[in-house]
Amino acid sequence: MAEGFGERLRRAVTDRGALCVGLDPSPEVLGAFEREDTLEGVQYVALALLDAATDAASCVKPQVAFYERFGSRGYAVLERVMSEARAAGLLVIADAKRGDIGSSNEGYAESWLSDASPLASDALTVSPYLGVDSLSPFVTRTTTGRGLFVLCATSNPEGRALQGARTAEGVRVFDDVLSTVARWNADATILGNIGVVLGASAPRGDFPLRELRGPVLVPGVGAQGGGLDQVRRLTEGVERSSVVVSLSRGLVGEGASPRSLRATMSRWRDAIAENL
Amino acid sequence: MAEGFGERLRRAVTDRGALCVGLDPSPEVLGAFEREDTLEGVQYVALALLDAATDAASCVKPQVAFYERFGSRGYAVLERVMSEARAAGLLVIADAKRGDIGSSNEGYAESWLSDASPLASDALTVSPYLGVDSLSPFVTRTTTGRGLFVLCATSNPEGRALQGARTAEGVRVFDDVLSTVARWNADATILGNIGVVLGASAPRGDFPLRELRGPVLVPGVGAQGGGLDQVRRLTEGVERSSVVVSLSRGLVGEGASPRSLRATMSRWRDAIAENL
Repeated sequence: MAEGFGERLRRAVTDRGALCVGLDPSPEVLGAFEREDTLEGVQYVALALLDAATDAASCVKPQVAFYERFGSRGYAVLERVMSEARAAGLLVIADAKRGDIGSSNEGYAESWLSDASPLASDALTVSPYLGVDSLSPFVTRTTTGRGLFVLCATSNPEGRALQGARTAEGVRVFDDVLSTVARWNADATILGNIGVVLGASAPRGDFPLRELRGPVLVPGVGAQGGGLDQVRRLTEGVERSSVVVSLSRGLVGEGASPRSLRATMSRWRDAIAENL
Repeated sequence: MAEGFGERLRRAVTDRGALCVGLDPSPEVLGAFEREDTLEGVQYVALALLDAATDAASCVKPQVAFYERFGSRGYAVLERVMSEARAAGLLVIADAKRGDIGSSNEGYAESWLSDASPLASDALTVSPYLGVDSLSPFVTRTTTGRGLFVLCATSNPEGRALQGARTAEGVRVFDDVLSTVARWNADATILGNIGVVLGASAPRGDFPLRELRGPVLVPGVGAQGGGLDQVRRLTEGVERSSVVVSLSRGLVGEGASPRSLRATMSRWRDAIAENL
């Protein structure tokens, strides 16, 4: 059996730190690089971010939306970027937020988590609106050494009403996500393969995060207003090497030259190591 | 200003009926066509379904997962299928269930709802886990004559706990989706551009569907166990030309030859017209 994603992530974080670099060639980020919003611009910026990330990060997280804008040709660039990231020894978290039912989820799991797929990634973000248990076709696929990050509680204020709604059993939606993920990870010796996405400034629930036994991906640091002190409080009592902090726009704002990008990323990696 | 999606849908349903054919080249459907699970098989089956749908349906709904399995090359086939469907006068509902925040949603809206995109569709399914108001970048894009179908209450039992959870105001999550969509459609003269996905056997809520003023897409008929009597009860009091009934596996089970497909689709179109 392949080494589990949880173990691979722990090793990567221990060796290379907890910074995850967003490979997000949005029109805004292309502008910071003084590039036109074309497919060539997208490829240039994604590879420049990847190049700078190689020394400072353990993971990269391409936001699929920014590649999909260019259709099949954009996906070909995404495939190249993900393949080069893996070749550089980085873990690739495809930020696609997929979530459907039955055979459609099997299709998505095949797309992102099977060895044979050109889009094969180390982990995929998934969305539980159709029921967290509807995600089981993805969970089944993680035995090949790949993982998931299930959307849980996010930093954006518009998400609070739904994510904090209470089920008939009186459990908050995001607490229900956490306890289901913990159930999926129950057999893991150290760290399971099913993680969650928890915004840095998301509200706290009842489920104790240290019982999750899965990776925690924390976006919303930097540009989205969250701070590392919030991440520390959020992940208190959680094994440190299971937490990954994701930054994107916050890395680019300080200058998009190769040298300034590398310096910014190293600074964030060190700040994360000191503060978590 | 372009004619709104709501108006275009009403006209299509009035002229061609309320059947929406799923263009879903899953491994199971490929098997029914006696095709190998290859990209060539996917293209063959999608175009065969489209060809049969041209006489019997007003809309087609490609499930993006089944194309994405083949990465960028699968997306190129999806682009071709969607382009041929539009050329045949069918409305294309891209079943991609996208949903993120901020600039990522702007990226997805550009991918699926902008004239310039190779993936341009008439409407897109979107998922509200990050908050139904987080979907506003999609809503903004619908002024170009395109529309949305927001996931609301679905037929699969695993979805019930989350979709029926109650917000701090005591409102069920899916009722909150319905009232937000109704607000977005408030200015529509007859039918707005923002629709919802409501499973045929989904539970009923408090929001009166006739006040939605938007299209209603009902999957879960046939193979997923729902019946047309359920659809009639679900959409009671709703203007008939705003309801679209989607079938996929249920069409193929009865034989995948061109002649039998056409016959099955026509039978369903007529059954929908008689029963709704």
